[in-house]
Amino acid sequence: MKAVQVVGYHRNLEMTDVAQPTVVEPYDVIVKIGGAGVCRTDLHILEGQWAEKSQVTLPYTIGHENAGRVAAVGSAVTNVREGDKVIVHPLVTCGLCRACRSGDDVHCTQSQFPGIDTNGGYAEYLRTSARSVVKLDDALEPADVAALADAGLTAYHAAAKAARRLGPRDTCVVIGAGGLGHIGIQVLRASTAARIVVLDRNPEAVKLAESVGADLGIVADGGHVDSVLALGGAEVVLDFVGEGGSTAEGLAMTKPAGDYHVVGYGENIDVPTIDLISAEKTIVGNLVGSYNDLCDLMAMAARGLVTLHTQRYALDDFQQAIDDLDNGRVRGRAILVP
Amino acid sequence: MKAVQVVGYHRNLEMTDVAQPTVVEPYDVIVKIGGAGVCRTDLHILEGQWAEKSQVTLPYTIGHENAGRVAAVGSAVTNVREGDKVIVHPLVTCGLCRACRSGDDVHCTQSQFPGIDTNGGYAEYLRTSARSVVKLDDALEPADVAALADAGLTAYHAAAKAARRLGPRDTCVVIGAGGLGHIGIQVLRASTAARIVVLDRNPEAVKLAESVGADLGIVADGGHVDSVLALGGAEVVLDFVGEGGSTAEGLAMTKPAGDYHVVGYGENIDVPTIDLISAEKTIVGNLVGSYNDLCDLMAMAARGLVTLHTQRYALDDFQQAIDDLDNGRVRGRAILVP
Amino acid sequence: MKAVQVVGYHRNLEMTDVAQPTVVEPYDVIVKIGGAGVCRTDLHILEGQWAEKSQVTLPYTIGHENAGRVAAVGSAVTNVREGDKVIVHPLVTCGLCRACRSGDDVHCTQSQFPGIDTNGGYAEYLRTSARSVVKLDDALEPADVAALADAGLTAYHAAAKAARRLGPRDTCVVIGAGGLGHIGIQVLRASTAARIVVLDRNPEAVKLAESVGADLGIVADGGHVDSVLALGGAEVVLDFVGEGGSTAEGLAMTKPAGDYHVVGYGENIDVPTIDLISAEKTIVGNLVGSYNDLCDLMAMAARGLVTLHTQRYALDDFQQAIDDLDNGRVRGRAILVP
Amino acid sequence: MKAVQVVGYHRNLEMTDVAQPTVVEPYDVIVKIGGAGVCRTDLHILEGQWAEKSQVTLPYTIGHENAGRVAAVGSAVTNVREGDKVIVHPLVTCGLCRACRSGDDVHCTQSQFPGIDTNGGYAEYLRTSARSVVKLDDALEPADVAALADAGLTAYHAAAKAARRLGPRDTCVVIGAGGLGHIGIQVLRASTAARIVVLDRNPEAVKLAESVGADLGIVADGGHVDSVLALGGAEVVLDFVGEGGSTAEGLAMTKPAGDYHVVGYGENIDVPTIDLISAEKTIVGNLVGSYNDLCDLMAMAARGLVTLHTQRYALDDFQQAIDDLDNGRVRGRAILVP
Repeated sequence: MKAVQVVGYHRNLEMTDVAQPTVVEPYDVIVKIGGAGVCRTDLHILEGQWAEKSQVTLPYTIGHENAGRVAAVGSAVTNVREGDKVIVHPLVTCGLCRACRSGDDVHCTQSQFPGIDTNGGYAEYLRTSARSVVKLDDALEPADVAALADAGLTAYHAAAKAARRLGPRDTCVVIGAGGLGHIGIQVLRASTAARIVVLDRNPEAVKLAESVGADLGIVADGGHVDSVLALGGAEVVLDFVGEGGSTAEGLAMTKPAGDYHVVGYGENIDVPTIDLISAEKTIVGNLVGSYNDLCDLMAMAARGLVTLHTQRYALDDFQQAIDDLDNGRVRGRAILVP
Repeated sequence: MKAVQVVGYHRNLEMTDVAQPTVVEPYDVIVKIGGAGVCRTDLHILEGQWAEKSQVTLPYTIGHENAGRVAAVGSAVTNVREGDKVIVHPLVTCGLCRACRSGDDVHCTQSQFPGIDTNGGYAEYLRTSARSVVKLDDALEPADVAALADAGLTAYHAAAKAARRLGPRDTCVVIGAGGLGHIGIQVLRASTAARIVVLDRNPEAVKLAESVGADLGIVADGGHVDSVLALGGAEVVLDFVGEGGSTAEGLAMTKPAGDYHVVGYGENIDVPTIDLISAEKTIVGNLVGSYNDLCDLMAMAARGLVTLHTQRYALDDFQQAIDDLDNGRVRGRAILVP
Repeated sequence: MKAVQVVGYHRNLEMTDVAQPTVVEPYDVIVKIGGAGVCRTDLHILEGQWAEKSQVTLPYTIGHENAGRVAAVGSAVTNVREGDKVIVHPLVTCGLCRACRSGDDVHCTQSQFPGIDTNGGYAEYLRTSARSVVKLDDALEPADVAALADAGLTAYHAAAKAARRLGPRDTCVVIGAGGLGHIGIQVLRASTAARIVVLDRNPEAVKLAESVGADLGIVADGGHVDSVLALGGAEVVLDFVGEGGSTAEGLAMTKPAGDYHVVGYGENIDVPTIDLISAEKTIVGNLVGSYNDLCDLMAMAARGLVTLHTQRYALDDFQQAIDDLDNGRVRGRAILVP
Repeated sequence: MKAVQVVGYHRNLEMTDVAQPTVVEPYDVIVKIGGAGVCRTDLHILEGQWAEKSQVTLPYTIGHENAGRVAAVGSAVTNVREGDKVIVHPLVTCGLCRACRSGDDVHCTQSQFPGIDTNGGYAEYLRTSARSVVKLDDALEPADVAALADAGLTAYHAAAKAARRLGPRDTCVVIGAGGLGHIGIQVLRASTAARIVVLDRNPEAVKLAESVGADLGIVADGGHVDSVLALGGAEVVLDFVGEGGSTAEGLAMTKPAGDYHVVGYGENIDVPTIDLISAEKTIVGNLVGSYNDLCDLMAMAARGLVTLHTQRYALDDFQQAIDDLDNGRVRGRAILVP
């Protein structure tokens, strides 16, 4: 089958012909890819940023945002069967460790990450596990939802976690209305009666945020922290940026006894202990969502509560998709369709 | 001032002239009534159903769903001032007992209940406490929201409590789309991405439920329990009826590990312990909401997330309002406007 | 191998020779039994009470409270290996359904129950799953903890669930200080600073309860409800009896806004909705604990926080054990040791 | 009456004669001081560290850890009466703001802090509020518990908050076994079955920690982080130090998905966002406890679950107490007894 592989760092991806994956373990599921999201992480992989952390052996097939149809299942698989439309959770987890047994599989102590440390989904077929596939509602198409498998899932996880403490008198500030923020706002809108205030440097993104559920959008032009403080501050801040000063701004906008959630990353959080203590603030780190989170997100997508703009490319045009992403020419998310 | 009083049980209310209430205690607040809801409980009071429980001395002024403008405040009042528009929480609570100190003022061990056990709001003025008044947003009018003070508050409380455990894959069944159910559905819709299924015997009420946020309405014509079971049952059932067999039906529709919330009342819940245990169900009693709940509900109302149809009557026409309610001629809630 | 089987209802168990179970599925674990608890449920099985519900085909091997050493593992098993001491969760669960993925495996939609609906542990070997075995601390012996696998696990689950809302000013009433209550009291004592009050008809059981952590024991001789009310009632009641009037008594002792947990069963709960609502009480059904609960309970046992008196019998003496249990001659729990 | 006052910064306190406080407002409570804790904060006040923040006008009476007997009450006070033994919550709160109405009075937007920004308890009498006094159990003496009013309350608050997520398989690391840590350990021991590991540089403090409930004490001599990691790390770290590198060490010992609670303060927390996110850690700031927390702590003290060593001084010997504290000559807490 065709597969797009990392053949070296600081080099372009290459399409090649590799053996189609087959069922080996009893919980294996082979997915015929219907769509594979092209993610900024893929660019970072090519730059070698993940080389040490992933310890992956080159060449290997890239692509960690995958959806498609089940092509084959192992002997122990009971949750999906051949032909089912599925989205694929980015991790393959063990199912036996304490984290897995608690529904917190993202902290599995023995997980694999196809597309990062083993073969991924820029290909015709992907090998994953019964524990990683979520059956899609008839109303959903794999290529439309593939990008929700990682970026969307991260946004869902943080927004759903944040929403748990929000009530109608609360304000939730979202920093960053890009890909993740866009999903996060929709999740918040469906899950809480709190006032949602969105900050972004891009006025277009601010407008879009208001169109998908934000009560108020503010262009982050320097006066935005004061604007939020003039509104009374926020019980919860959800920072999808995590760099360029957003962490200090986010904490400054958080009210006493409030939560500052960090999702985006880049800079250090540097805060005097006395400030955290005297205002009793909490700083919450957020990783990608669990399998249950992905099930929840798909339920929302099936009912139209979360939508995502996608731009499709044939798998053969992978280089075009990569270039478009790198040059800011993708509106929404780029999806490779084999 | 004019006041409408209970002068005897199984007798009509009578309008009379009484002394206007004045500030006595430091936390007293005198409210000029802008609207007083006419509630089915008022009919029950006249039938003597509350006589023993309330131990009230006749005559006294009836009316426990009140809103208006602050006319005077005691020396210690800092949260409202003369002229403020306010809605009045039905209880006057002590502020010092463990329940009050925990935000759970409804379980105050020393509360008063104006309209039930002391003078209420079918009058030009009402004496209440700083602890009971919620300042209204400019966008809200007292006569429009008065009925949210008790009926709406009860629905809010149960729906908000129920919503805490609901996620996008869950189903919440609401039994009864009358006055309380109508508010409950709006609260659920704004607070959770769960699927909301509403049951009512009245096809018009079912339609209305769908128009304010239910995902699915089912006419309760005998096959409704099976219909819900065919949908997979409900993680949460919210029963605003509590009689005529609704409790057994509600428990039957509740999935294993699910919650059955009872709000309406009348019949007994009679369930084998083995059924509760083997399916690990929880039965949750729900009373009227707290002061915080009322603040939350007013925040929702101010943003248009909860609305209520009202039918206004001059205070002088109190008998007409009572008769209309008794004969099913009120659409939404009847409000007396002095 | 030797196995003790149900060969007919209303007949004695019979020891016979059966094939030793072997690994079939990749997650299979074969346990060499070190101890099998003799439970009152086993008596009920022989009386035919479970025949219809379990749909088990006779003959089959009884015994659902098992612990021992791992004798063999399937190809996919990574959490235990040959020779490990383990306790066996009573259910074999699928690992893929929503309940299993949420850590709530007890509500697995495809579970098996060895000893009830398939071969159990009154034998030399038991076939179970990697998902059901909990590795024991070096300090623990299988025969000492076997009875914690079901009876103890049920008590743990209810006590741990109840303890979550208990604080130092709260009172928790435990109804019944028998096998389950005895474990429940120890779990509560280690998990909460609440006052623990224990009721039992048997003065010896009350004394024992005080020796393992109860702050106060009360002999249930008719005045016990009044005694508890004189103490102010209970924020939480944990009813390990569930018959003979305990449910009405339990609810009567529960304070407004309190929780009544039912664990034991037998009678109906029959309560006016108005009582549940006006005092805003919650009734909580409790089933056996999850795999995580069993891990927690074993962690407590390893540190000496929970202990259980056991009376050992050779497997050949199974009839003696059954007879002793039936005639009230077992102190603590009877354990069969092959 | 006698009162010890701040008459200038960088000067000694002075005892003087001032008017005895009297009831002015309806919720006022006058307490005859039975014991006033001498706290390190008092030294900081004299150094002028609080001058700007508190905006207090000199001279004023210092002392914010107070207990005694009620000497007089205002007209609206119903929770205590003359002669009652009480401990005094350090804040006088409004009772009407959102925080107060939610039981979260520490975040009251209009609070006063006697001993910091108004007259405190190094005196014969103190004026406080009905909202600030907790009636003591007969078993407790004001001078014995006074130091629990602030230092102990802070430790209680953090430990109780941390304990909520701890189960029997979890490890809680306590950094610092001084005054606060000592109380925190006792609170944890009574509230959770988790393993408690305590770190302190002082071997004597480590021994004391083990004697009051720690499962394991480790002398913080440089290898302590590795020692904790060798134990598997901690689900929860409770840092009562907050300086000298403890924040980085605390975060390093926190497991993925774990909580790092900071109580002590001094240094900055400086952490890469990628570290917080990839391990999904939470950093929790902790302030002094609420009124409810103080009630809970007194319930624990009354049952002997929390004890504190105190060293008494006559009020006239205030300078000796200050000097002893400043020179490390106080074992436990210094208490002034008028």
